[in-house]
Amino acid sequence: MYGYAMDKEEFQARLARVEGQIRGLQKMVDEDKYCIDILTQLNAASAALTAIGVGLLDTHVRHCVRQSIERGQGDAEIELLVASVARFVGR
Amino acid sequence: MYGYAMDKEEFQARLARVEGQIRGLQKMVDEDKYCIDILTQLNAASAALTAIGVGLLDTHVRHCVRQSIERGQGDAEIELLVASVARFVGR
Amino acid sequence: MYGYAMDKEEFQARLARVEGQIRGLQKMVDEDKYCIDILTQLNAASAALTAIGVGLLDTHVRHCVRQSIERGQGDAEIELLVASVARFVGR
Amino acid sequence: MYGYAMDKEEFQARLARVEGQIRGLQKMVDEDKYCIDILTQLNAASAALTAIGVGLLDTHVRHCVRQSIERGQGDAEIELLVASVARFVGR
Repeated sequence: MYGYAMDKEEFQARLARVEGQIRGLQKMVDEDKYCIDILTQLNAASAALTAIGVGLLDTHVRHCVRQSIERGQGDAEIELLVASVARFVGR
Repeated sequence: MYGYAMDKEEFQARLARVEGQIRGLQKMVDEDKYCIDILTQLNAASAALTAIGVGLLDTHVRHCVRQSIERGQGDAEIELLVASVARFVGR
Repeated sequence: MYGYAMDKEEFQARLARVEGQIRGLQKMVDEDKYCIDILTQLNAASAALTAIGVGLLDTHVRHCVRQSIERGQGDAEIELLVASVARFVGR
Repeated sequence: MYGYAMDKEEFQARLARVEGQIRGLQKMVDEDKYCIDILTQLNAASAALTAIGVGLLDTHVRHCVRQSIERGQGDAEIELLVASVARFVGR
């Protein structure tokens, strides 16, 4: 994450938590837990990933996009940003 | 849409199309169409709305956010933008 | 909606409300409202559509899928249902 | 996953792949990769999780819901299913 080294730790902590949730899911499948409970856990992991994605976008706009605009070269960055948001919302 | 009058027409045309899709849904419900067919139509309207939302974000970043940053006042705009994207992706 | 005529009125009322929201969006675009406010309103319409979709799925499972299974012919209905949910969640 | 032991292996294989994607994300953050590339990878992991969720729903309807309905006790299962889909689609 260009120019955003400060919060790297938080991103790593959140990703480690999602990794733990995925391992929890593997254990639940292994132990034949009830589908709906597995799905509830999967939703939690999915929401956590989405929140990390929003954090990345935040970082990106605050740093990369801002700097590009300040340098008068925002167009390409903005295009990438919007394409990325479009994929993020699922289309 | 501040500063983006040019494409107002396209936004209006797309919104009119979604309005037509919603009216189509009302007709389908009225005529007791098969649920899955109604849902397919509803998905289409929903995807069209999402695409309009992405278009709005695009416009917003390209104009409002860029101008705020160029004036050295990007922080508040960026905060609003990210909060808006976060709600848009559903969390 | 096969076999679910009772709640037709609620579906119609909700669809009419979404239609109103879409018209509200057209007015906001027409009046050059602030993008983020338009997006907030668009999110509300989108969430209302999703809620109607969940209601349709509910109706569908409770009636069509249940009846098909009771008649020993659930396979095709279940396949359609899952395909529809898959599209609904955006993949 | 009650009554669906057969495909346990596929669920496990897919979850293991997502776990690998999450570890890949940690590595990308660690190496200060470009935000948009991280986000692209995060989207891939997120889509993979959603696909696993759809697979779980599929399994659940095909087995638990079907069996409950066949035993004349489908109501509670259907309620849980719809609540779970509602959370899954993000409301």
